[in-house]
Amino acid sequence: MLDLVIMAAGKGTRMRSARPKVLHRLAGRPLLGHVLATAAGLEARRLIVVTGHGAEAVEAAMRADFPGLPLAFVRQEPQLGTGHAVQQALPVLGEAGTTLILNGDVPLIGAATARALVQACGGERLALLTMQPEDPSGYGRIVRAGEGPYAPVQAIVEHKDASPAQRAIGEVYTGVMAAPTAALRRWLAALRNDNAQGEYYLTDIVAMAVAEGCPVVASRCADPVEVLGVNSPSQLAELERAVQRRQAEALMDAGLRLADPARFDLRGTLAHGPDCEVDIGCLFEGTVQLGAEVRIGAHCVIRNAVIGDGAVIHPYTHIDGDTLGVQVGPGALVGPYARLRPGAVLGAEVHIGNFVEVKNSTLADGAKANHLAYLGDASVGARVNFGAGSITANYDGANKHRTVIGDDAHIGSNCVLVAPVHVGPGATVGAGSTIGKDAPAGQLTVARPKQLSLPGWQRPIKAPKG
Amino acid sequence: MLDLVIMAAGKGTRMRSARPKVLHRLAGRPLLGHVLATAAGLEARRLIVVTGHGAEAVEAAMRADFPGLPLAFVRQEPQLGTGHAVQQALPVLGEAGTTLILNGDVPLIGAATARALVQACGGERLALLTMQPEDPSGYGRIVRAGEGPYAPVQAIVEHKDASPAQRAIGEVYTGVMAAPTAALRRWLAALRNDNAQGEYYLTDIVAMAVAEGCPVVASRCADPVEVLGVNSPSQLAELERAVQRRQAEALMDAGLRLADPARFDLRGTLAHGPDCEVDIGCLFEGTVQLGAEVRIGAHCVIRNAVIGDGAVIHPYTHIDGDTLGVQVGPGALVGPYARLRPGAVLGAEVHIGNFVEVKNSTLADGAKANHLAYLGDASVGARVNFGAGSITANYDGANKHRTVIGDDAHIGSNCVLVAPVHVGPGATVGAGSTIGKDAPAGQLTVARPKQLSLPGWQRPIKAPKG
Amino acid sequence: MLDLVIMAAGKGTRMRSARPKVLHRLAGRPLLGHVLATAAGLEARRLIVVTGHGAEAVEAAMRADFPGLPLAFVRQEPQLGTGHAVQQALPVLGEAGTTLILNGDVPLIGAATARALVQACGGERLALLTMQPEDPSGYGRIVRAGEGPYAPVQAIVEHKDASPAQRAIGEVYTGVMAAPTAALRRWLAALRNDNAQGEYYLTDIVAMAVAEGCPVVASRCADPVEVLGVNSPSQLAELERAVQRRQAEALMDAGLRLADPARFDLRGTLAHGPDCEVDIGCLFEGTVQLGAEVRIGAHCVIRNAVIGDGAVIHPYTHIDGDTLGVQVGPGALVGPYARLRPGAVLGAEVHIGNFVEVKNSTLADGAKANHLAYLGDASVGARVNFGAGSITANYDGANKHRTVIGDDAHIGSNCVLVAPVHVGPGATVGAGSTIGKDAPAGQLTVARPKQLSLPGWQRPIKAPKG
Repeated sequence: MLDLVIMAAGKGTRMRSARPKVLHRLAGRPLLGHVLATAAGLEARRLIVVTGHGAEAVEAAMRADFPGLPLAFVRQEPQLGTGHAVQQALPVLGEAGTTLILNGDVPLIGAATARALVQACGGERLALLTMQPEDPSGYGRIVRAGEGPYAPVQAIVEHKDASPAQRAIGEVYTGVMAAPTAALRRWLAALRNDNAQGEYYLTDIVAMAVAEGCPVVASRCADPVEVLGVNSPSQLAELERAVQRRQAEALMDAGLRLADPARFDLRGTLAHGPDCEVDIGCLFEGTVQLGAEVRIGAHCVIRNAVIGDGAVIHPYTHIDGDTLGVQVGPGALVGPYARLRPGAVLGAEVHIGNFVEVKNSTLADGAKANHLAYLGDASVGARVNFGAGSITANYDGANKHRTVIGDDAHIGSNCVLVAPVHVGPGATVGAGSTIGKDAPAGQLTVARPKQLSLPGWQRPIKAPKG
Repeated sequence: MLDLVIMAAGKGTRMRSARPKVLHRLAGRPLLGHVLATAAGLEARRLIVVTGHGAEAVEAAMRADFPGLPLAFVRQEPQLGTGHAVQQALPVLGEAGTTLILNGDVPLIGAATARALVQACGGERLALLTMQPEDPSGYGRIVRAGEGPYAPVQAIVEHKDASPAQRAIGEVYTGVMAAPTAALRRWLAALRNDNAQGEYYLTDIVAMAVAEGCPVVASRCADPVEVLGVNSPSQLAELERAVQRRQAEALMDAGLRLADPARFDLRGTLAHGPDCEVDIGCLFEGTVQLGAEVRIGAHCVIRNAVIGDGAVIHPYTHIDGDTLGVQVGPGALVGPYARLRPGAVLGAEVHIGNFVEVKNSTLADGAKANHLAYLGDASVGARVNFGAGSITANYDGANKHRTVIGDDAHIGSNCVLVAPVHVGPGATVGAGSTIGKDAPAGQLTVARPKQLSLPGWQRPIKAPKG
Repeated sequence: MLDLVIMAAGKGTRMRSARPKVLHRLAGRPLLGHVLATAAGLEARRLIVVTGHGAEAVEAAMRADFPGLPLAFVRQEPQLGTGHAVQQALPVLGEAGTTLILNGDVPLIGAATARALVQACGGERLALLTMQPEDPSGYGRIVRAGEGPYAPVQAIVEHKDASPAQRAIGEVYTGVMAAPTAALRRWLAALRNDNAQGEYYLTDIVAMAVAEGCPVVASRCADPVEVLGVNSPSQLAELERAVQRRQAEALMDAGLRLADPARFDLRGTLAHGPDCEVDIGCLFEGTVQLGAEVRIGAHCVIRNAVIGDGAVIHPYTHIDGDTLGVQVGPGALVGPYARLRPGAVLGAEVHIGNFVEVKNSTLADGAKANHLAYLGDASVGARVNFGAGSITANYDGANKHRTVIGDDAHIGSNCVLVAPVHVGPGATVGAGSTIGKDAPAGQLTVARPKQLSLPGWQRPIKAPKG
């Protein structure tokens, strides 16, 4: 029986932010969300989150993001140290088994690492997660009774209290431990705060375990990134790069070709078929799915979208499906400078060109809007050519209306289709027309004044200054 | 009494540029400007800049950028070495006190470092700024009479003249020194150019000082970036990255959240309130001020602008206030692909959407221009909706005129407002209208031809090739 | 007499791609193309490319890219090892002289390195290209009879077969060799595949040479990047960065100023005059030529274009000349958000502003299209002002037609010029006009309906939901 306690009460003063520290986002997800996502795979009886600063916001966010998890929230107010934090969990903690204690601001702990630590505890040993940083200064050193990775731990000695010999020790404590739950309850009850800070330190239980003869073991974490904490915007940015680099490597191993992994950002999930390429400076958010042989040009921003086989997304394309999603059909060409907004659904071989915005509109196969256009709340038939500068006027100032354009219609340049309006299949709308009534199928519809020239006209002249 | 001499006469052949080397820009400011900005804090009696190549341009630029500094310019023509450069300063140099000698192409020297060196001199010792580079090859070694940082300096030995034992010395000269002014005058007068290059070397004064029994001391610079010189575009780029990284770290320490500090560029100053976020690839220039909780999306370029609390700037937004500035009100939404030009003043909750350009125009609270529009020389009232594709025709080919739109007016799509023109409060302008006369308040104004359909019309057919 | 054999038959399983490995692109050119470009400078009698996976595609691509080279293609099907690969070349290999064996997936081998290896062979020694990687694990070690770089090679010992002493050897084999052609023919014929994999290993010829008393020599490659192979998207990306960094350094040495060499991509060739500057995030493709003092803003994408002296390209400008090229005249201002497409030819001092697309059009000196416009298949005279939102309607649904605008014409905002159409010199076209007939020189031409206001009009009201 495994219980998890996740410490998430801290303020994070160095973040200099009104936002609770554990809600700061890494790769698009709150720090604490990373921990819970990993914790979700550990099959714990209960995940006890100790909240404090911004507790309501933290609890609401996690309940929303992890509806299926057996979460329990306990409040630590005020915050009187790590031991005090875990003490708050006692009312909801189990009676026996193992308790794994994680930090809500150490987001990248791996499931394998956590499992190894739980196994090292085995419900009967106090197991400390340790690491060997390049520079152990400032960390609590792991003092063992003997040499080698299996020698029992005698103490964690804080840097400031360490002797020169102890300071030479390279193995340090990470802040993560797993303890026999029954013993943990006993040890927590015995914690004292008779120290300079007046706080209850969780690490004091190590001495209690040693005094009781409970074995204390250390499990080494090979990857220091797993135990990096976030205390400042700088550390957050550093960890963001580490996450992004990992994601990029995993995607490349799966065959995605990235022009520059250091200039690739994914805040969510990116699925892809074979032979996809992503150029420099692209940012993916939410859930994005690429078919086979999709090419994403430089500096694109893409969120919540499905892009079909062989589609080409040219540079500076902005796709944001938000909650409705965006679909781009196979062989479509999009951009540069195209913006696809929620509900844009492009069929096969659709072309959306520069300075074109599409919102809540369906374009059937082969339709084109290549230049300077706005398609909003429109149903556009197959092979329609929607002219340069043309616009669906979908908003009358109070309500949104739909525009329906039949297959093979040809809309000239700089037209306005004032919704609600239908353009019939095969219709042609002359350039510069404002169309307020339905345009019949197969006919040319125009609204154009007579062209006149005024021979005697004089151009304005530059006004004198002052 | 402190005098500064700043050597800024060099050509910088490896820059391969017609521009004088010290005028090349680092983080948006000339190299020499960085030195003068630091020097400005040293409370020197006089800042003597030794110019040569491009002297007029250098002098004009510095006089313009530092109007309040006690600058004196002396010319070194031709350039016959570092000693010769400082000799040119003699006519305007003080008689006593300390002279600090800096390099105009070593831009990042810190004020604390300079002060420490001046203090080491104390008006009576020759003080050399030294450092310990990873690889001292090529540098002049600091030979001391004894061990430790306080052992007096005996000589600077050039790499090519150094014995194997001297080459093992890790401490090298940086090119920066502070000297007792009276002695410096004497030593400079005694310099000789009987060497292979026929130049006067400033470092020759070390031997003179030693011979006279004047103490020669070394002050170590801990940060090698402070003494990096710029001799080539590659070095300039390297130093640019160093500056950018420092700026990014300082901003993050103050709470600014950067998605990637390696992809953040600031050429000027950026002020920010709490909880601001800047996404990847953004470039800030001039003076930019962000309120609280401002979010800047990916790949934005922003210059000389003030952005209010809670505003959201979407990706690819280009804001350039130039000399007039741009103001974005609280809660405004701008972009993606929005361009705000000089004199754009957006009220609270204003929305400027994709492919919209705003120049020298005021938009009152809640006004919107969401799609494909140009607002130039316009005064737009509160809650106005400026339709997709609509344009203020502010230029008649000779003069610019203003467009005034009253509160709550609704401008349809693809309209042209031919300035000078007024649209009254609450007026509605029908889609596709070209408005050359004032539109009355509260009324619908349209200029639209009758819509006609031609049943017998035949579409053009594809012409045969050739 | 030099023959080259280039092994290019491999599948590249880890690329997880349908594309033959050697056709994956590095800096815009197939991996094998890099090898052939270098090989082209070696004055070989024949370049024999051993193809296999995707042989037809590989051969077609290389024949197209290197029409002048003496290429010979031989097929290796199935692929039975490196020795087997070179065996396939025997029918077209010379009888005497030297044979240099390269790898099609090791793209950056330098011509100097290759020449040194050929010289080391001298038609009579077996010459192996070696290197000293930081970590030699996994590589075949070079076992020499004695110390020093001239000691003869005795064997290449695979890592798995190496003794502890041999594993301590830092010099390893790179996969590149040069052999006396006559001996190579003999050795290849004697290769056996009685090993675990059942493959023919080229390196087995080392033992044959030693056995025959043929001297085996090693030529060390100083730069490890030259012998890096590409086996995965990650390695491809890593090598891409190495190439880009080299290109950036070479351009900076020639005086080009890059705001950030780590954010500069060139896939082709970039020529430049003095004092050009390229800001962050720019991508150059194909053949791009910059005059003197050209400034390229942030995040531009430029392909196949010639940009004149003093031109300024603002951020987010997309120029793609494709096969027709794009020309930007001296002193032109382009962007931000401008798109120049094939056949765009801009004269001196032309201004192309935001959200403007130009395709297959000529703009004479001083012409301007500053806002939201489309110029396609147009000839635009000198000093023409092409208004905001105006469009050349060049496509009637079947054919493209040209628009001709005379010098000094002024086209108002939101106009459509329906091609074929002529606007005479000095003509003015009123805002909002759709022009289907020629507009006479010097006159004002308009097509504008009467403006009406409806006092009693009621705005639409928000429909009740549901």
